[in-house]
Amino acid sequence: MLGLQLPTDPRWAELIRQDLAELLTDHAWCEQKAASNAISMIVRYPELSELVTELTRIAQEELDHFGQVVAHIHKRGWVLGPERKDNYVNELMQFVRKDGGRDERLVDRLLFSAMIEARSCERFKLLTEECPDEELRVFYHELMVSEAGHYTTFIGFARNHGGRVDVDKRWAEFLAYEAEVVMRYGKAPTMHG
Amino acid sequence: MLGLQLPTDPRWAELIRQDLAELLTDHAWCEQKAASNAISMIVRYPELSELVTELTRIAQEELDHFGQVVAHIHKRGWVLGPERKDNYVNELMQFVRKDGGRDERLVDRLLFSAMIEARSCERFKLLTEECPDEELRVFYHELMVSEAGHYTTFIGFARNHGGRVDVDKRWAEFLAYEAEVVMRYGKAPTMHG
Repeated sequence: MLGLQLPTDPRWAELIRQDLAELLTDHAWCEQKAASNAISMIVRYPELSELVTELTRIAQEELDHFGQVVAHIHKRGWVLGPERKDNYVNELMQFVRKDGGRDERLVDRLLFSAMIEARSCERFKLLTEECPDEELRVFYHELMVSEAGHYTTFIGFARNHGGRVDVDKRWAEFLAYEAEVVMRYGKAPTMHG
Repeated sequence: MLGLQLPTDPRWAELIRQDLAELLTDHAWCEQKAASNAISMIVRYPELSELVTELTRIAQEELDHFGQVVAHIHKRGWVLGPERKDNYVNELMQFVRKDGGRDERLVDRLLFSAMIEARSCERFKLLTEECPDEELRVFYHELMVSEAGHYTTFIGFARNHGGRVDVDKRWAEFLAYEAEVVMRYGKAPTMHG
């Protein structure tokens, strides 16, 4: 799915079934972080007008998803728990080159974002099948479609703004790195756990 | 207007007329910072469900405004300039108590936000009268109404969640402090300059 080399450990769905409240709180913060990530890219690349416009739209959609997840939490009589760290995302961030030219850094940042969308999409697909709450299954199907669109946008921007960078080669490197990382996950009832 | 003790220096409008591109870039970043401020309050107070819901709505509106300002920039053939520091807002932030009880800190953070909305609202009102671009005059009128709503929301939350804090007294202190700060501004073609 979207180029991912490894599927999520099947036991992950079992953990989710046992702790939906934890999944939803963690998921809400994933959406908040996705919105903040898009905003921070805008701050970094304001002169790329097309990128700014698209990232604004993405940030709005992520914030909208955040609001929807929070509404699902409140509707079930729960309260949004404290922000969680996302170790999976932090491990991916380590693959983003901090040195190198501007093109390299921009491409890496875009592929990092695309990578998270791709894995989230795979997890959402699992949730449309395995989530014990029917309303949430429908919700996760909608999100899966939306995040697949974001994935396409990020990959497209990497190709269009990557200058001399071989984006296909770098994306293959990202996918291989992610496969190594994700092998250690699937063990907690969180979106990227 | 909204309790402000000092009007903006009338010469500010003259500066704006001379550099609309600078105003718009600075304004866009004000909206981004307002969105990020709302998000950071959500991260700090996730257990206040009503606050989370309202702050999410406010963050969405601020991001929507950011997108609209950016569209006005692009439409005029300009490019969003780099992020600006907002010295006025940074000076207000110094008045927010970092120690003190939880109620005091929450109230201060809400009144800090209300204060920025109030002054922005006054500046927007000036722009509906003084801006040389008719389309922008209409735009700033819409924003003025929206930001006045945010001001009311922040003040209302301070009263509802302030516990034992005397919110009226603290707001009077904020207004007096802001009057001292703003006396040194009105000298640059930026939203809070």
